[in-house]
Amino acid sequence: MEQNVRISPQEKERLLSHFETQIMQVLNWLATFSPDEEGGITRLLYTEGWLEAQQALAQKMAGCGLKTEFDHVGNLFGKLLGEDLDAPSIITGSHIDTVVQGGMYDGAYGIAAGLLALDYLQQQFGKPKRTLEIVSLCEEEGSRFPMAYWGSGSIVGKRNFEQIVHLQDSDEVFFTDAMQLCGFGEGMGRDSRRSDIGAFIEVHIEQGAVLEEEGIAIGVVDTIAGQRRLKFEVIGESNHAGTTPMHMRRDALEGVSMMIQALRREAVRIGEPLVATVGRLLVLPNVPNVVPGKAIFTVDARHADGQVLDRFCRWVMQEFSSIADERQLAIQGTEWFREEPVPMHGKLKAYMDDVCGKMSISSKRMVSGAGHDAQMFEHICPTAMLFVPSRRGISHSPEEYTEPRDLAVGVLVLTELLYRLGYEGEEL
Amino acid sequence: MEQNVRISPQEKERLLSHFETQIMQVLNWLATFSPDEEGGITRLLYTEGWLEAQQALAQKMAGCGLKTEFDHVGNLFGKLLGEDLDAPSIITGSHIDTVVQGGMYDGAYGIAAGLLALDYLQQQFGKPKRTLEIVSLCEEEGSRFPMAYWGSGSIVGKRNFEQIVHLQDSDEVFFTDAMQLCGFGEGMGRDSRRSDIGAFIEVHIEQGAVLEEEGIAIGVVDTIAGQRRLKFEVIGESNHAGTTPMHMRRDALEGVSMMIQALRREAVRIGEPLVATVGRLLVLPNVPNVVPGKAIFTVDARHADGQVLDRFCRWVMQEFSSIADERQLAIQGTEWFREEPVPMHGKLKAYMDDVCGKMSISSKRMVSGAGHDAQMFEHICPTAMLFVPSRRGISHSPEEYTEPRDLAVGVLVLTELLYRLGYEGEEL
Repeated sequence: MEQNVRISPQEKERLLSHFETQIMQVLNWLATFSPDEEGGITRLLYTEGWLEAQQALAQKMAGCGLKTEFDHVGNLFGKLLGEDLDAPSIITGSHIDTVVQGGMYDGAYGIAAGLLALDYLQQQFGKPKRTLEIVSLCEEEGSRFPMAYWGSGSIVGKRNFEQIVHLQDSDEVFFTDAMQLCGFGEGMGRDSRRSDIGAFIEVHIEQGAVLEEEGIAIGVVDTIAGQRRLKFEVIGESNHAGTTPMHMRRDALEGVSMMIQALRREAVRIGEPLVATVGRLLVLPNVPNVVPGKAIFTVDARHADGQVLDRFCRWVMQEFSSIADERQLAIQGTEWFREEPVPMHGKLKAYMDDVCGKMSISSKRMVSGAGHDAQMFEHICPTAMLFVPSRRGISHSPEEYTEPRDLAVGVLVLTELLYRLGYEGEEL
Repeated sequence: MEQNVRISPQEKERLLSHFETQIMQVLNWLATFSPDEEGGITRLLYTEGWLEAQQALAQKMAGCGLKTEFDHVGNLFGKLLGEDLDAPSIITGSHIDTVVQGGMYDGAYGIAAGLLALDYLQQQFGKPKRTLEIVSLCEEEGSRFPMAYWGSGSIVGKRNFEQIVHLQDSDEVFFTDAMQLCGFGEGMGRDSRRSDIGAFIEVHIEQGAVLEEEGIAIGVVDTIAGQRRLKFEVIGESNHAGTTPMHMRRDALEGVSMMIQALRREAVRIGEPLVATVGRLLVLPNVPNVVPGKAIFTVDARHADGQVLDRFCRWVMQEFSSIADERQLAIQGTEWFREEPVPMHGKLKAYMDDVCGKMSISSKRMVSGAGHDAQMFEHICPTAMLFVPSRRGISHSPEEYTEPRDLAVGVLVLTELLYRLGYEGEEL
């Protein structure tokens, strides 16, 4: 076993200490752009703080000897040019935008990790065989405009200017105007679309509590789960809570409570990685002394297998209908959002498993229940994702937190993977 | 049997036709005061429309030969003076105010029914042995100010000026100012408190669907149900709907859905007249892709027996706690409102049963799940209530409706009861 280990245990410790200090410096520095007055970070696409962050990052990349470039939507690339300039680039990175009152790790960690990895590799090993790049994607969250994955989608050809021309934010600012104020837009900089990418690797916090709960350092993402979102409207009859005997009621909320129970039972029966959630529920008229006449609620269901997901959603539709019938309620259900599962690249996953194994870092294959930029890149190149633990699974919140040591382990695994792909010429 | 019938079948038919026409005339006329622009009637305490209605009613009462009088909170009395002025009065009536966008029957019907009964009795039989009165109570609903039963409560001594001195409506108008603008208040008119009432009889629409469902004309109220209102706050943990496996969730809404199911099962098991309702439920953060971290809801429970009700509420507290424990949720429950059951007067109920039986009018004893002015009067005198059917049980809505014939039957029974008490000197 010893022969296979490129990095000795002493070297691993030294590197982890180094990354631990560095990653917190970069993340704390990034967190100074667009702090939210009420805590956390609100760094929305094409705002002043967003532009400052991207420009400062470009300077930092240049300081690390990377060749920087913005594309025409504002994605920022830092390139460590390789010997073979014709070979497709290996890209790592994530998004610079946040949700409203988000945390300092979601997105930012993937960019910071890439920066540290490339800086270290360049200092230690100089020019790689093929170009390694870090990308700070302009947008992923869809928090300012109703359009998510704007950065990665523009690179892979799933997003374009036609799609955003009529979009406005909540202050009625047009997407195009906000973009142009930052110096981006059609004809302003290089076209986003790329066909020279050899692989995309995204490092991210888990945003779930599985790694923490199981005491595992690295999650190698097997598949990004498919999603279905359903909306139901259940109609009964509003009645006086005092004068309507139990047997005469057509209580919409009581019906919904049965449906929620049935949903959970079936989701548990089918088992992981299926998750199903009623996250939103409105009751009408919603007053203490009136039997609810109407209830509107959503179901969010996710699984790594689209067929399992579709079968589950058909079951949900049928089961909810029969509960409604039994309770003399009317029900209408519609699917208003669907996203197919995205499997990550087999060889990249195997390399990551191997890197972890060789360095005695605990890891597990897992499904990503959340969506990520990686699912966009998968359309055009081998793609992989690597998770580090999130404390209590909290994300999209100022309370988002990952231990510096856990962050450092992620950087180390990324570094080693980029070394193999960029310097050792590992094939994909 | 024939000997016992004071009113012949022919006379009954003639009277019903007469009351049917009359009652609709009075109700339609009352509905012209404070019509709501969006349908129905919004006649709130001490508003212009309310004052016009009371003043017009006073004129109409005087026109029927009744001696009218306002007390200092704005209750309007119309008296048909009896031979024995020392004998306590028999009073019938209900409230003139409505909820926001209410119907034209709730309250108004009891006043109109009393008016028709007294008018008929006076015309047919002249002066009664003891004084019969009709009252148009100023307020019952608590719709303008947070104070219900202001009219009846002032008469029986359960309400007083001290209680309302700081109260404001939603436009920040003080209760006292609104009252004085209408010419009422301390020292303005006769003191509301009375100790000369021999009995109170309230005729009202059922506001439930039991009589309609069972095809019964008259409900003789046995007891006005006691009420308990509980409020619960359930705390779990807000988590990402995609990244949190089912077994790691502490889903507040899922817990509440179990509680709603348990509540219904137990209420059905205990049986009528118990009713239990979760009418209000708020879910937090209430977004489709987040596992609910918090839920706040109410339970409204009613029964004719206060002990059964208390036992049920203790069960609810214990059961909800154990469901919360099982689901790793925290729960806090408090009782924020309680009202004891109010039994109606035995002899009056028996007289009503008898009147219905003698006139071949179908009737049943029933619990009133709703609160009424009658429960205030019960503190000071023998009290009874009589229900007529409500179409589909709908009330507090412009859709409130009762067939004119059903309304007429109620007037007929009231008339006969007042005859017995006022003219025949039936004892209580």
